[in-house]
Parts: sequence; structure tokens; C-alpha cells
Amino acid sequence: MFEEYFSDNAKQMRSSEIREFFKLTEKPEVISFAGGFPSKDCLPIDQVQEVNKRLLLEAEEEMLQYSPTEGQEDLRKYIVDFMAQKGIDVGVDNILVTSGSQQGLDLVSKIFINPGDKVITESPSYVGGLGAIRNYRGDILSIKVDNKGLRLDLLEAELERLTNNGQQIKFIYLVADFNNPTGLSLAVERREKLVELAEKYEFLILEDDPYSKLKYDGPERPAIKNFDKQGRVIYLGSFSKIFIPGIRVGWVVAAEEVIQKLILAKQSTDLCSNSMGQRLIAACGREGIIDNQIKKLCRLYRRRRDKTMESLNKYFPPEVNWTEPEGGFYTWVELPPYLNSKDLLFKAIEQNVAYVSGEAFSSSGQKQNAFRLSFSQPTLEEIEEGIYRLSEVIKTELNSFEARNQRCIK
Amino acid sequence: MFEEYFSDNAKQMRSSEIREFFKLTEKPEVISFAGGFPSKDCLPIDQVQEVNKRLLLEAEEEMLQYSPTEGQEDLRKYIVDFMAQKGIDVGVDNILVTSGSQQGLDLVSKIFINPGDKVITESPSYVGGLGAIRNYRGDILSIKVDNKGLRLDLLEAELERLTNNGQQIKFIYLVADFNNPTGLSLAVERREKLVELAEKYEFLILEDDPYSKLKYDGPERPAIKNFDKQGRVIYLGSFSKIFIPGIRVGWVVAAEEVIQKLILAKQSTDLCSNSMGQRLIAACGREGIIDNQIKKLCRLYRRRRDKTMESLNKYFPPEVNWTEPEGGFYTWVELPPYLNSKDLLFKAIEQNVAYVSGEAFSSSGQKQNAFRLSFSQPTLEEIEEGIYRLSEVIKTELNSFEARNQRCIK
Repeated sequence: MFEEYFSDNAKQMRSSEIREFFKLTEKPEVISFAGGFPSKDCLPIDQVQEVNKRLLLEAEEEMLQYSPTEGQEDLRKYIVDFMAQKGIDVGVDNILVTSGSQQGLDLVSKIFINPGDKVITESPSYVGGLGAIRNYRGDILSIKVDNKGLRLDLLEAELERLTNNGQQIKFIYLVADFNNPTGLSLAVERREKLVELAEKYEFLILEDDPYSKLKYDGPERPAIKNFDKQGRVIYLGSFSKIFIPGIRVGWVVAAEEVIQKLILAKQSTDLCSNSMGQRLIAACGREGIIDNQIKKLCRLYRRRRDKTMESLNKYFPPEVNWTEPEGGFYTWVELPPYLNSKDLLFKAIEQNVAYVSGEAFSSSGQKQNAFRLSFSQPTLEEIEEGIYRLSEVIKTELNSFEARNQRCIK
Repeated sequence: MFEEYFSDNAKQMRSSEIREFFKLTEKPEVISFAGGFPSKDCLPIDQVQEVNKRLLLEAEEEMLQYSPTEGQEDLRKYIVDFMAQKGIDVGVDNILVTSGSQQGLDLVSKIFINPGDKVITESPSYVGGLGAIRNYRGDILSIKVDNKGLRLDLLEAELERLTNNGQQIKFIYLVADFNNPTGLSLAVERREKLVELAEKYEFLILEDDPYSKLKYDGPERPAIKNFDKQGRVIYLGSFSKIFIPGIRVGWVVAAEEVIQKLILAKQSTDLCSNSMGQRLIAACGREGIIDNQIKKLCRLYRRRRDKTMESLNKYFPPEVNWTEPEGGFYTWVELPPYLNSKDLLFKAIEQNVAYVSGEAFSSSGQKQNAFRLSFSQPTLEEIEEGIYRLSEVIKTELNSFEARNQRCIK
């Protein structure tokens, strides 16, 4: 499934080599850390079934007829309350319901990017975000991250450079909480500072937040949107990771003027998001089923995150580094620079273990010595076994590199 | 709801004047011939409820997890069989499931149109098609229709003119069966000839077919796609009008190479279409529920179409003309050229009756003396009463025009 995240530049490869490769990862004997999917072990099937049955009786027409382009009123009101819980005070006119937050990425790119417009992303960055920006031929500039997320010193230097050249950026795109692929979060003081920079250099911020509710240690951080005073932050939310992915319901929070433009763009894109899904989410939200599901998921994923960290510590050789996520689905593994994670992947597959290699998350195909592990899907036993298998593949590569190197020295 | 169909050029108006106006048409006392929605009187609620309940038990993961971007295998197979019933022989690799056929319009526009590329449409044409093409800054050329659909003599002359100027068109977009807004169909001999022209002048044909199964007199016509030998026809299908609109499931039939590109485009647009809807459609299709629903809808809409024609004949003055559709939802009414259908609409609303005025269906705001009546939603009583009210509004306008004219002559 992950070939869908590769860059435009890799289109040829994606539709042949990687598709073929992906089929291999789907074999049941492969332990896959590849897909960023929610676990199938915790789908809220009973509640969904009950609520759905009731709604089909009570709200027939709203379940089956077209919905308004901006989304059903009930769902927008629930989202307003959901945002209020995060301390973000908005009204229904600030909400657009989207067909998953990927559509938010597409529509925001559609209404803001002219070909050649400059957009800043994190390096590494979510492939779906890169893909949406590229589809409108945005010119992507990437800024490195450290353990506290996006490096604002580098960002400010870049903004200065652009300003001196009479150039501007349209927006900056980032996943501030439990970033895909790094698992890292933007430090709170950087969030505040980033908004100040947006005001100073007059750009917008596209904050993509599918994961912040899946925090396994300590309280949630405020979103970047919490610091927004001028409406410069466009916030994307999603029910895919915290409730049900296949229902395809996400949302955008933005200034009313932006929402109005997005509604016009959505009209020609898919008319409206699916009505059954919208009605179902609104009802499950109101009845506390979503909040309850988030708690269950946090318990499940916390154990998987812990097992992942434990296994990496236990098996991986000292030459390898990885991030320690406080939430979300991912850890980002960095190999020594002389190893190539894509070459390694083919060997890993032979040992029935899979991940996504790093260059997928780079706008320029960098990050070739890194890869993403997603711990959301495998069970605890699979996590330990899979990481053990991976460690063996890596050690073999390291040894063979050393052997080659020593021969060279001789 | 119809403001969503207006052109890019009309954006400013749409988001204020027309939105306000649209609210008026939603008042319960208004008989609305405006929205192109399926009737709420015939939603297959019981069957959907039963199938849905069973599927949530049997196919939990496929209902709730992400689907493949190209669509669920079962649904694609059902669509292959659905197309075979129309005499169109394709395989699953020729099928992409879309989030309604509006997404098909968007994605096809996305993968084919560079800014300034020429695209031919019918005049008048479906607003959602015009909107999708405009969003990618296609240069729209429109060709008139007559009672047999697109005028191929005019098309051929235009193609010759373009060829002589060293220009080419990318594709031609049309609704060949029970066109939105005219209700007319392209004659079979013109379908065959159109494919020959596409081969000769090397363009593609985008055939948008939401209505062909809703035929109330005689057997279905072959689709344009039936005459396609080189893969030049891209066919868009939809379950919105023949089954359930709110489920947002449509499809594209095209050459495998085109489907591959569309899959890549869809990945960055919404990842996948909603899984519950896909599974539900595939199951209802296999169990004959969709075929059965089509029969029911044909019976319902046939009566509404007949009542519409009867009422127009009974009440409308001789200065007014309209089309006689063999299927679908629409009839297209032409007033004398000195009447403006938008001005008239405000007067109609005052009399609690509504339609969509003609300029919405023109790429250049023409068709100001025409309007679209949709007979899918009002009941038989409402149809007669609504058309009576409209006839009174039109007669008053005609009389007042004549009075003004006579004053001028004096």
C-alpha cells in the first residue's frame, strides 16, 4: 500500500517496481512496519453497528441523500466542540468537512498554489503532503528538523534570504505532533515562535494534525493553531487515526474567507463527502464513543510503542539511531550514512520484514540511510520478532561493509 | 444547493447573492425544480439497513479500514459485470472507483489539462463538468446542440479550423444520455461518428453517464464507449442517481494506462473512497438490489416526467418551448429571447416555485433566456401546481413586455 506515498518524480517506478515490491509485503508471513494504518485489532465494530442501524431508521434521508458541500451541520457542530476541547475557539463557519484530511491537503494546495509558488516543508515530511503540493507544481523548499521539530533558526535564515531576493513563501506545511515519519513533535515554544514568524514574513501555516490525541505520555501540547491570532493557521483534522479510516471524514479549520474558497474548490472536486460517514461520526462523537475509542487506542498503541523501543534497544546495533515518540504511529531509524535503506529493504523482505525507506519522505529523494517503522499494526510478538529480524539484516550489512572496507585498506 | 454548480467567474456572486437566494428555495412552501437530486421518496432504506448490518459482522475490516486507492476488488468486479451488461467489455484494471463521478471529472481534468489546453463541451453543459475543467484552467470551446445532441457538423468545422491553425483539443466532454441540463440524448449514429472524429483528429472523449439506466421509453442506447476501438473514450459512471447519492461512489472506465495515472492522481487527492460505501454497493449490486432499485426508480420518474410534460402542455404559453426527455431528471425550457430567466427566477421565488436559470450551464454566461426544470424531486401534485405557478409568472412577464412594447410603438 505504501507506493501511494511516493513522489511525483518517482511515478514511473511506483507504477511498476514498487507496486510489484509492495505485493511482497502483503504476504501473510511478512511482519510489516510499512503502512501507516490504524490497528485492525481495535476497530469499534459493535458500536458502529448499533449506531448505524439506529441512524438508518431515524435519519434516513441525511444518511443516503447528498450532503451540503461544507458538511452536515451536526458534524460541523461536533467538530466545533472537539476543537473547543483543544482550547481552539471557532464556529461552524470556520469548519469544512473533507473526504479525509488528504482532501484538505489537496484543496488547500488547490486554492493557494500557483505553479512555481514556494512552499516550505519539514525534511523529512509526510509523502501525502508533498504529493498534494507537487500536484499543483508548488516549489518545495525543505528545512531540517532536530529533536524539537522544525529548526526555526534555519527557517528564519531561509525567510531572510528569500526576502532579500524579493521572494515570499505561500505557506509552510507541517505535522507538529508525532510527525509522519519522524514521530517527533514541535516544541511548544517553537509553535509560538513559528506563528510570530508567519506574522512577520506574512505566510500561512498548514498544520496537519492526525495524531495529537494519540499521546501516550503526559498531557497534550497546544496546537500551533492555539497561538494563531490573525487566522494565518489552517488546521487539518482527521477521524482516520482516532476512530475509523475507511469512513473518509476529516476537516479543515480556517478563517471563514478561506473556508468559503475551499467550499467552492470542493464543489468541483467531489460535490460533498459521504453522508453515512458524516452522520455516523457526528452520532458516535456525541455519544462519547469516539472519546472512548481514543482511550482504548492509547492503551493499545502505548504498549506497542513501548515494545518497539524495548526491542530496538535490545537488538539494534550501536551504529543505528532512532527517535523516541511520545505518541502516534512512527519511529524514524537512521543507519550509518554508508548504508542505503532501499537496498536494505529488499534484503529485509527476503527475511519477511518490511518498512518504508527514507527517500519517500524527502522532496528531493534524500534520507537514503533512514527508514520509517510504523508500530500501529503488528502485535507485541510481531514487533519483537520483526525488529529482531531487521537487526540481523542490518548487522549482516554492517559486517559486509566492514569486510569490504578492510579489504580496501589491505 | 445549486450555487455549487456556478462557474469560476461567478465565484464572488456565488458566495453571497446566490447563497442567500438558495436559502429561499429551501423554504418548505417552495416547490423546487432546482436541485438535480434523486427523489427522497424511493430511497432503498430497508435493504441498505439489512445488508449493512450483515456486512459489519462479516467484513468488519473491509468496511472500516482504508481501501486500495483504485477501489475494492469486489466492487471493481461488480462494475466490470455492470459494464458487460451494457456490452462494454473491460477488466478490473480498466476500472477506478471514485468518490462520486464528480471526482472522475476532477481527476481526468487533473491528469490531462495543462493551463490553456483546449477542451470542447456541449452548449449548454453540466456545471460540475465546466467547473472541473476550469479549475485546471482549460480553455473551453462550446458547440451547440440540437434535438439529436451535439451538432457534429459544427464540431467538425471547429476541428478543421483548429487543425488549420496548428491547434488541437485535449478532449471533448459530454453527457450523451438525458443530458444535464437539456434532457436530450446524442443520436446513435452521431456517437459512432464522434468516435471516428476522435480517431481522425486525435482527441479523447470524456463520456459522463449518470442517467442512461433511467430510460422511460424503449431500450437503452449503446454508449459512446461501445464504439471505442482505440481506448479514446473515458467513461464515467455513478451510483448516485440509480441507487444512493450520499454514499459517494462512482467509477471511471478507461485504458489501463489512463487508469494507472488516475490512481496516482487520486492518491494525493483523497487516498481512497469510503470503504463502507464501496462494500455496500458491491453487496447490493451482487444481490440484485441495485437492479431492482433501478426498476422502481424508472416507474417513479416516468410518472413524474409524464406529469411534467402534461403540465407544460396544459399551462405554458405558446411562446415557450421545452425538450421532451426519454429519461433522466431534466427538461430544458426556452423563453422568448427578450426574457431573462434569472430576473424571472426572483419573481418565481416570490410565487414559491424555483428552477436553475440557464446561464449556469454556459461556459460564457449565455443561455439567459432558458432554464432547467428537474422533475426528480417534486411529487405529481407539486409538479402540476409548480408548473401552473411558473406559467403564471411567465405570462405576467410576457404581458408586461407586450404592454411596454405597445407603449413604445405608440
